Amino acid sequence: MTIITLTTDFGASDGYVGTMKGVILSIAPDVRLVDITHEIAPQNIRQAACVLHASAPYFPPETVHLAVVDPGVGSLRRVLIIQISHGCLVGPDNGLFTLFLADEPEAECHAVTNPAFTLPSVSATFHGRDVFAPVAAHLARRLGHSEAHRAEGSLARAAETLHFVQGDTLDLSEFGPRVTDPVTFAIPKPTQQPDGAWLGHVLYADHFGNLITSVTDDLLQRIGHLEISIGGRRIAGIRRTYAQAAPGELVALVGSSGRLEISVVNGNAAQTLGLGPDAPLTLRRMQASLAS
Amino acid sequence: MTIITLTTDFGASDGYVGTMKGVILSIAPDVRLVDITHEIAPQNIRQAACVLHASAPYFPPETVHLAVVDPGVGSLRRVLIIQISHGCLVGPDNGLFTLFLADEPEAECHAVTNPAFTLPSVSATFHGRDVFAPVAAHLARRLGHSEAHRAEGSLARAAETLHFVQGDTLDLSEFGPRVTDPVTFAIPKPTQQPDGAWLGHVLYADHFGNLITSVTDDLLQRIGHLEISIGGRRIAGIRRTYAQAAPGELVALVGSSGRLEISVVNGNAAQTLGLGPDAPLTLRRMQASLAS
Amino acid sequence: MTIITLTTDFGASDGYVGTMKGVILSIAPDVRLVDITHEIAPQNIRQAACVLHASAPYFPPETVHLAVVDPGVGSLRRVLIIQISHGCLVGPDNGLFTLFLADEPEAECHAVTNPAFTLPSVSATFHGRDVFAPVAAHLARRLGHSEAHRAEGSLARAAETLHFVQGDTLDLSEFGPRVTDPVTFAIPKPTQQPDGAWLGHVLYADHFGNLITSVTDDLLQRIGHLEISIGGRRIAGIRRTYAQAAPGELVALVGSSGRLEISVVNGNAAQTLGLGPDAPLTLRRMQASLAS
Repeated sequence: MTIITLTTDFGASDGYVGTMKGVILSIAPDVRLVDITHEIAPQNIRQAACVLHASAPYFPPETVHLAVVDPGVGSLRRVLIIQISHGCLVGPDNGLFTLFLADEPEAECHAVTNPAFTLPSVSATFHGRDVFAPVAAHLARRLGHSEAHRAEGSLARAAETLHFVQGDTLDLSEFGPRVTDPVTFAIPKPTQQPDGAWLGHVLYADHFGNLITSVTDDLLQRIGHLEISIGGRRIAGIRRTYAQAAPGELVALVGSSGRLEISVVNGNAAQTLGLGPDAPLTLRRMQASLAS
Repeated sequence: MTIITLTTDFGASDGYVGTMKGVILSIAPDVRLVDITHEIAPQNIRQAACVLHASAPYFPPETVHLAVVDPGVGSLRRVLIIQISHGCLVGPDNGLFTLFLADEPEAECHAVTNPAFTLPSVSATFHGRDVFAPVAAHLARRLGHSEAHRAEGSLARAAETLHFVQGDTLDLSEFGPRVTDPVTFAIPKPTQQPDGAWLGHVLYADHFGNLITSVTDDLLQRIGHLEISIGGRRIAGIRRTYAQAAPGELVALVGSSGRLEISVVNGNAAQTLGLGPDAPLTLRRMQASLAS
Repeated sequence: MTIITLTTDFGASDGYVGTMKGVILSIAPDVRLVDITHEIAPQNIRQAACVLHASAPYFPPETVHLAVVDPGVGSLRRVLIIQISHGCLVGPDNGLFTLFLADEPEAECHAVTNPAFTLPSVSATFHGRDVFAPVAAHLARRLGHSEAHRAEGSLARAAETLHFVQGDTLDLSEFGPRVTDPVTFAIPKPTQQPDGAWLGHVLYADHFGNLITSVTDDLLQRIGHLEISIGGRRIAGIRRTYAQAAPGELVALVGSSGRLEISVVNGNAAQTLGLGPDAPLTLRRMQASLAS
């Protein structure tokens, strides 16, 4: 049973997501649907890119990840299918899959041009329903077929460790031509300042008010003992867990997606500091003796 | 596998929707559950009617659409099952299904009176759990049985093109007597003014702040080139897509449900104009030479 | 097909819940996932305890109820599995299951210590993904196996009425040692005052603004005719349904979970009274002739 995940900025108050699910189930009645989130800030491609990239690796191989944050709906922006090592991505060609493409620059991308894979009538404003949902559903059917075909064979177990789609069962060129220039955005990366300190930025705040930053774990390893300045406050050292600090304390730790996060224990750092996306932070190496 | 969709004003913060799903799965373990929305404004029957009516056609035939927006819970208002051409509707008899009944005035309606289809103990305040969920689940079981029965027959394919439920497998009178007077509300329709202009109204704002109006595409076709006045602003002509205008521009276009929508490109028209449900708008025919 | 329900304070805007579902489906591809709610107020263990306890009895037997409200993530707090009469509970040992344990004080509790049931790498901040989701998935697999095993036997029907898991198919000690001291909180109970009146408290407000209180139906039965004082307002008697009062009227009734609720008919009592959790209310017996 192939899984299709959904990531959109459609919110929960309209029937838009439900409608997309109806379309998918009309085409592929056996797929399993899993919501990642529909509360991406309207038209915020970068947030969607980060959230999906953090979640997708935890799904079974052959999962189809459908993402619709689409400020260019109705324009000529392309409709992409990208085959990654542990599944397929479907969405508008606007940078949504930047982080996946950074991991796998050679991933096979196709632009969907075959009208057999969209609804017969395509509106100008709701491609989630008319284009992306049916494309994802047709793709999931093909993956499911591939899976069933493999399972029947006596080498089923062995095949699972091979690249997951066989050329003879899934051919993405059926959907449209291969493309080699998918749209990507520049991934925010910390930069080293003349005085040796590193300047990073807040990417977004999560539901708990944790500020997720552009600083990744490997940079922290390289810096070693450090002091962080953010919003006029200083934080000495990186905690391993919230439990190492007192409720209400401002702490820095490596979050579940491998990024530096600024948090208030059992509180809300975004509110406490009054900070959000793009807020700067600096990291300065300290003598080990000064760090906690 | 029969689908049951759910549309309620129960919100996401309590366990009410989860509880309904538990009841459904206890009765019909194989149904597939799809949320349309649970964020209908409390007791807003018209909003729920519009949202479900726009979404339901995209689901497979034989889907059960369960809607619970029920200000009359605990009163003597009836519990309805309505058989429409592509599925069944279940909910309180308060106007929720007005738009479906306008499409199919001869649709068969039954009032559920058979206590075998509710939970043994019915509370006075939560009929979603005690009445509507079990009725929908029992209905889905019967539809699933009908489906399986048909699929077994050698004429399965032919039967699919017939009316979808056969008298010998689904008999709604099992649930209660047929009724011919379901509650409906007056569907808001634009009216022509003495000066020839048309007066319409905003029905509701969606998650993106698009103002969905009572003006349908067929009226727009009849008027031809036009100018719209809304909230002290004027909009010349109807765009086909958001992409035809600049970000921040106020535009009018035909939305995905066939209604005139007022939008701000990559913005929020409801906030920009400070308008919501019931706000008036006028449409005035223009000389073609003046329209864009 | 075993069901896993999910109750968290993770909200809808991040991918945290979707990620947990990916983990579960990677381990137990056939389970059915049902959200109770992800909008528990951050770190509010009592609210989660009430919501799950009201919802769980409506699910089929053998359901796994996974709850993650976990202010102690990263500390040494234990990971619990509790076998109750109609399913299993999985979550942190912080009081989340207090109400279930009050119902079934002898329920078998185990602390999960076997690393075979968590992800290979356990982060310090997201045990929902790394610990609780995989534990629930492995538990659901074992319950599913038990179910299939039983269904095959000729005594399947009879067995269903027995205790639902047989020692030879589900052995919780596989997960870790039995524990007898799960963390619980004191369940708020009304107390009788010197003047004979009962003092209770608001537990929480639901999505509709209904104030759910610590007063249960059995106490109301004992008091008989009564007057309620709350937020400077008086309410005479208990209504059976909202429909017995006029829109806008402040009423008291027994809600769907068997607790006294203070409501405004078709309105929002929490907003009208400006009250929330912990607000006091008093119940005073009245002469029958004075009550409505």
